[in-house]
Amino acid sequence: MVALQESTMIDGEAQVRRPRERILAAARELFRRHGIHGVGVEAIADAAKTNKMALYRHFGSKDELVVAYLQSVVGEVDDIWTALERDHPGDGRKQLKAWLSLAEVCIASDERGCELATSAIELTAKDHPGRKIIEDLKVDHRKRLVTLCRRAGVSQPSVLADTLTLLLEGARVSRQSAGAKGPSAKFMKTAKAVITNFLPH
Amino acid sequence: MVALQESTMIDGEAQVRRPRERILAAARELFRRHGIHGVGVEAIADAAKTNKMALYRHFGSKDELVVAYLQSVVGEVDDIWTALERDHPGDGRKQLKAWLSLAEVCIASDERGCELATSAIELTAKDHPGRKIIEDLKVDHRKRLVTLCRRAGVSQPSVLADTLTLLLEGARVSRQSAGAKGPSAKFMKTAKAVITNFLPH
Repeated sequence: MVALQESTMIDGEAQVRRPRERILAAARELFRRHGIHGVGVEAIADAAKTNKMALYRHFGSKDELVVAYLQSVVGEVDDIWTALERDHPGDGRKQLKAWLSLAEVCIASDERGCELATSAIELTAKDHPGRKIIEDLKVDHRKRLVTLCRRAGVSQPSVLADTLTLLLEGARVSRQSAGAKGPSAKFMKTAKAVITNFLPH
Repeated sequence: MVALQESTMIDGEAQVRRPRERILAAARELFRRHGIHGVGVEAIADAAKTNKMALYRHFGSKDELVVAYLQSVVGEVDDIWTALERDHPGDGRKQLKAWLSLAEVCIASDERGCELATSAIELTAKDHPGRKIIEDLKVDHRKRLVTLCRRAGVSQPSVLADTLTLLLEGARVSRQSAGAKGPSAKFMKTAKAVITNFLPH
């Protein structure tokens, strides 16, 4: 179980984490670790040091909480992309290199894989509002990667972008079924081999 | 809900599906559609036209049923590999072509992705006996694909095998989060581009 601090005193100023934030943080940690269906609202309320009534007051239902969770992940991914573009303005090659490093860190550091991809697997109902959030992000991510590849001056930017996306998604899901020493460990090697073949000779 | 026939009369001979088989078939269909955690034993027993008591008599627990389900998927994948090797004995190039076609059919026909990969995502407990079944199959699959690539005479068989594995795993998982028109639709294009670069020039 996660233990989340209710409040911290820093320089006499109360840094209070509000119940809504605590519930969302606890939900994210538990969903990530045990899956959306593997956790009930009671366990989430407990971990957030609150109760079910407060949880329902803030989120209405578990589905609404799932939607808020997915939106928070999307916000984080957006921030990562924005930082990547800001750190290497207009330099596609450097952006591509930074994207690869970030991808490798993602694969190596998180054995539970992409939170959006695994949530899509769990949210089997086609009309679940969470599915649209996930799909919209993936569409946006794809466009950004194509733009990045185009800026890097490769021969077929959209084919390279899709190849890299499939390699990354594959590595993150493969790590869970084939272990950390399986094909996922070869992500960087395979991605670099692929990129070399798309660069002008 | 799946409706499974209890018995069918063909030419006067009773083709009876035994309860164990019916339970396993119903479990597979429901797990595939709703996820392992999205289905209870009662729904499985109902779909198999039997009851919970009979289910527990045959399988002991839901976990045992999950293990039997995973073993049946592994058996099927083994059969596909054996057929692929038998249909094109010793001819790596033809086997590689056949592997690609099979992979494309898998991606296009099943929107719920690889049953083993998605089960590994759902079985978050590291000591769940199902995880070893999945990992063993993935290790075996990897070896067979390396052998196939070596027979096909490519320059770095193990790198190509891992690249193709990541592309396939990526396509199957990406279809669920980015939709059927997302990067998964480009599997064949990306795989062929990759293979070309591994073939001797």
